[in-house]
Formats: sequence, structure tokens, C-alpha cells
Amino acid sequence: MPVYTCTTVRSTLSADTKADLAAEVTRIHSMINHVPGTYVNVVFHELAPDEVYTGGHPAQPLLINGWVRTGHPEAQSSQLVAEIAAAATRVTGVPAERVLVVIQNSPAHFAIEGGRVLPAPGEEEAWLREQKDTD
Amino acid sequence: MPVYTCTTVRSTLSADTKADLAAEVTRIHSMINHVPGTYVNVVFHELAPDEVYTGGHPAQPLLINGWVRTGHPEAQSSQLVAEIAAAATRVTGVPAERVLVVIQNSPAHFAIEGGRVLPAPGEEEAWLREQKDTD
Amino acid sequence: MPVYTCTTVRSTLSADTKADLAAEVTRIHSMINHVPGTYVNVVFHELAPDEVYTGGHPAQPLLINGWVRTGHPEAQSSQLVAEIAAAATRVTGVPAERVLVVIQNSPAHFAIEGGRVLPAPGEEEAWLREQKDTD
Repeated sequence: MPVYTCTTVRSTLSADTKADLAAEVTRIHSMINHVPGTYVNVVFHELAPDEVYTGGHPAQPLLINGWVRTGHPEAQSSQLVAEIAAAATRVTGVPAERVLVVIQNSPAHFAIEGGRVLPAPGEEEAWLREQKDTD
Repeated sequence: MPVYTCTTVRSTLSADTKADLAAEVTRIHSMINHVPGTYVNVVFHELAPDEVYTGGHPAQPLLINGWVRTGHPEAQSSQLVAEIAAAATRVTGVPAERVLVVIQNSPAHFAIEGGRVLPAPGEEEAWLREQKDTD
Repeated sequence: MPVYTCTTVRSTLSADTKADLAAEVTRIHSMINHVPGTYVNVVFHELAPDEVYTGGHPAQPLLINGWVRTGHPEAQSSQLVAEIAAAATRVTGVPAERVLVVIQNSPAHFAIEGGRVLPAPGEEEAWLREQKDTD
């Protein structure tokens, strides 16, 4: 269901670090937003040094943009963004000063996966059960 | 007006398939959201195998993120996401289980094209007529 | 705080033009949204010719997507999108007809930078002061 997009300058993250960050983001999202890890997508955009600027100068930030379904409780969203940001620094070693995590959302019914409209937050179980029945 | 961003691992889609999917997304958006096809943008991000993860493991999803203007009728948005998702599998052969389509939106007046603020949904005709008059 | 993502076909923008556009977007955002330039991120996605379509055909648009915090006054958002769009053509020479600027937003408390939740619009000064105190 969710998509986390991580943007860095090339060579900021090793292949192992990307795999580790993907695993950790998946674990955190799964735990907090009640979605099986198998539904969590993490992608990396690794750009050339002259394609990334902070303050108008070439820079090496780690920008993470997560798309989630609208309607999770506020406390849950706050915990999610905090844990993703903490994991980003813990896993990659990029200092917190250069890490920006942004969560965006749109209604679950504006998204389709596996040919089915996504469930609203709180209705995951029935959706997943139905999915299983059709497998 | 809209921008559809398709993300895959490199070599998932041939050049022909990309052109076909772009054409089909354009046709669908144009038909449902009443925008001339010439205003529909479709871009592809084709990433390295170690840049795309689902469930914490390297994976080959087809992720489609569409940006549209806020304010289309609900039924129209539901039809849009359903037809884009169906087209994605039909055109590319990627099974529905690996296709995720997400529609995001922001108000038309937060977007500018051709030097002019975009029209709200339903006001396209006057906007397009004005555009033509200035050509 | 904000992230501006510019998408073009490769070779549309020279290295100098990218740096100039990043500097100008930074200056404009900083001035209008009251954020120090050092907090403005601008990234470029430069894609292959068969990865960018407008109207179902390969094309050379300049697509700019800006993420900002929710809650800026409407007039401010209108000025922001207008000045970014004008700068895009002025700096790059890409005609306005091929420039699309879209601003998206989410609540400041859905974003973390430097380990801290972002301030709501209007509360930047206290946030920045606190940041400085911990340096």
C-alpha cells in the first residue's frame, strides 16, 4: 500500500544500506500502520551531484517522501514520521541535520493494488482476508 | 495538467510498452477528466534492481502515481483510478498483484501551465478557449 | 523544509542552468514563505527521451513539483506558484507552454527535519531559534 521514495546523491548509500533501510522502513510502517510488510514499497532515486541542491548549492541530503492512506489517527502518523526519521539516520549514518522525512496522503479509495481499491485505515483485516480468499 | 509518474525496475517495460502505456493513460485521463490529451504528461522512472523493494526485498512492482486537480466528482476519481490500474496490467503484462496506482491531488490554483493558473474541474472549456485566443 | 522536484528529458538543462534554477527557486521560496534558503531543497530528475510523454508522444516539458507545508495564506501560495513558474522560463529558456508547476502540501507535523517536527507556517522563527540554541 504505501510507497516510500528516498532521494540522495549517487554513492551516498551502499547497496547493503539501501536494503537495510528498505527493511527497516518496511518493519516500522508495518508495525505502526497495521499493514503486512509485503505491501510496503521503498524506492531509491540516486541522482548525479549536479542534480541535488540545498540552499542553492550542491548538497547531500537524504530526502524521504512517504505516501500513505488518509485517515490514520494523528498520534499514529506522528509516531510513523518520527520512527522513519530516526531509522534513516540510524541505518544510513546520514546526520539528522541532512535528513528530511515528509508524509503525504490521499484517500484509500484513490488507490488500487492487486486490482482492488485499498481499504480505509482500520479496515485492513477484512481486505486482506478477502485477498487471501481469492488467491 | 495531470502528471502520471510510473516507477519500475529497468528493463521491466520496453520502449514500445512505455509509449503504449503513455498513450493509454493519456486517452483514459482525457476521456474521464475532460482534458485534451495534449495536456496529459506521463513520465517513467526506471531504476536499478537494488533501488526497488517490496516487503523489504528487491522486487519488480509497477508503481503509478498520478497528480490531478482537486475537485473532480468522487465517481469520476474512482473510475479514473480503476481504468488506469486495468490499463497498466493490460498494456504492460505486469500482473495486477504487482501494480499499485495512487492518485494525489492539489487545488487547481496551486498549479500553473502555459503561464496560467489551471482551471478548477468543470471550468476547462473557458480556460482552453482563452488559451486558443492568445495563440 | 520544502522539496522542489524538477523533471526533464536529459540535456534539456545544462549544469549551470540547473544551479541557476535551484538558486532562483530557493530565493523565491525563502522570500515568500519565510524560510531561510538553507532549508530549501531542489532536485532534478533527468530522464531518457523515451521516458517522458506529453499527449501520448515523446516530449520535452519542464515539470516542477513543489512540496510545502499546509497552511500558508492563499495569496502567498498563489504568489509562490506564479513566481516559480515565471522563474522556470526566465532561467531555463523553456517556453511557458512547456512548463507545468504544481504545489502539493501536507501538514507540517507530518514532516521531520534535523530530528524535529517542522513548524506550522507562521511559527518558523521560534523553531529556527530553538534550532540555533542546540547548535
